[in-house]
Amino acid sequence: MSIDWGDVSHVTKVDPAENLPEDLSILDGTDLVIVGGSDGVTRENSLNALERIRAHHPDVPLFQEPYSSSHVSEETIDAADYLSVPAVYNGDRENFVAKHVNFFTEVGSKPEEILGSGLPLVGDLIASRGRDAIEAISEKILAEGYVVQNLDSKAAAVSGVESTFTAEQVAGAALATESFYGFPIFYVEYSGTYGGPEDVAAAAKYLDDTVLLYGGGIESREQTEEILDAGADAVVVGDCFHEDPERYRRTLC
Amino acid sequence: MSIDWGDVSHVTKVDPAENLPEDLSILDGTDLVIVGGSDGVTRENSLNALERIRAHHPDVPLFQEPYSSSHVSEETIDAADYLSVPAVYNGDRENFVAKHVNFFTEVGSKPEEILGSGLPLVGDLIASRGRDAIEAISEKILAEGYVVQNLDSKAAAVSGVESTFTAEQVAGAALATESFYGFPIFYVEYSGTYGGPEDVAAAAKYLDDTVLLYGGGIESREQTEEILDAGADAVVVGDCFHEDPERYRRTLC
Repeated sequence: MSIDWGDVSHVTKVDPAENLPEDLSILDGTDLVIVGGSDGVTRENSLNALERIRAHHPDVPLFQEPYSSSHVSEETIDAADYLSVPAVYNGDRENFVAKHVNFFTEVGSKPEEILGSGLPLVGDLIASRGRDAIEAISEKILAEGYVVQNLDSKAAAVSGVESTFTAEQVAGAALATESFYGFPIFYVEYSGTYGGPEDVAAAAKYLDDTVLLYGGGIESREQTEEILDAGADAVVVGDCFHEDPERYRRTLC
Repeated sequence: MSIDWGDVSHVTKVDPAENLPEDLSILDGTDLVIVGGSDGVTRENSLNALERIRAHHPDVPLFQEPYSSSHVSEETIDAADYLSVPAVYNGDRENFVAKHVNFFTEVGSKPEEILGSGLPLVGDLIASRGRDAIEAISEKILAEGYVVQNLDSKAAAVSGVESTFTAEQVAGAALATESFYGFPIFYVEYSGTYGGPEDVAAAAKYLDDTVLLYGGGIESREQTEEILDAGADAVVVGDCFHEDPERYRRTLC
């Protein structure tokens, strides 16, 4: 599946460790769903969330955003259209480079451990299935250049973020994404607080090929519109999806 | 200029702080020249090396590999076909992410400081020239995913490398390059010592779209062939170009 980002302006982030609403028609009107979180997330609850959302909304693009390889299995990879994987510009070395190299080292050397025990265990089949599995994973991965702008958030804690970026640095990270790293997505994450349009506007002026996402504290249509007007391709709405369905609905344009 | 990597198997790395040979016909037979180094490198000697090599070998692709923005000027960018910029996987955070974000932050916010004082200084011209200059730089930059495998080298010291990678980790970094970071070049750097074909073979199995370069200690045709047979697109020959022209010539196939 390839994503037509021109059709995506509202993204919902679903935490698989939280209870899903009984009635998933609440997701009517969102353009893409990302399943991911940190505390309490497992392969099993990730798969459960992916499968329930897919069953109810078969035509909505569905991403898994894993924070570690312990969230990923062959089944979650099959269930999601893409794995969106954050590389945090203002985090520690671990979160921008080491965990990714480690993940791909494991994928390359021990695909059966990443992908469960479903691999054939004899002769060349291991090698060929291993290589196929690696290609299947590789083709599904979308890297996200992330900037985490709320120091008090869980996202900052798990990514080793000790300082936020100025708007000029956000612009620099956006330009580095577009020109150097080539990640398909640049993501400004205010995680739980509304950061306003300044960073989005700073990033947007350098992004032609890169999709620009903003997440954090969106609770109204006015905020959604302010962020889109500043140049974001889409807003990502998370917390209020689980906490307050009425407020969540008001974020849709 | 776009590079046809199928025609490139021998690359010469020229240190602009060293004296160039009087007779540059010594470069006959190499397929690409990279100008770059650390100690004593300036904008001025970089430009001088680029211009002399270009004058003598107008058809050979010519890269500048800057270690800091103090090696770069509008003139060096004009003189080189590409700027190849290392991102060191096993270095410190500074060398994989921070220096690049800082560079692009400077490019975005103060293009005149990166590009000298040649920018017009009035009204909208600054903004439009700034944006044009940024695009000109961005289009010329080729990111290189680097692994530095010699702890005693200058390259390790300037990149904050404190441990080398196993062959499995080199393979993981190669797969991360191909699947996640999307850098056009993956570079195994043994800097001054011959590392043999093991890392190259480990990396090559995951690289389809990424160019694989090996540098370090190449002093003979046999070593060149061993590295190319292991799957490298090209060997990079540096030290002996300056130190021993006869030995340098023996590295050519």
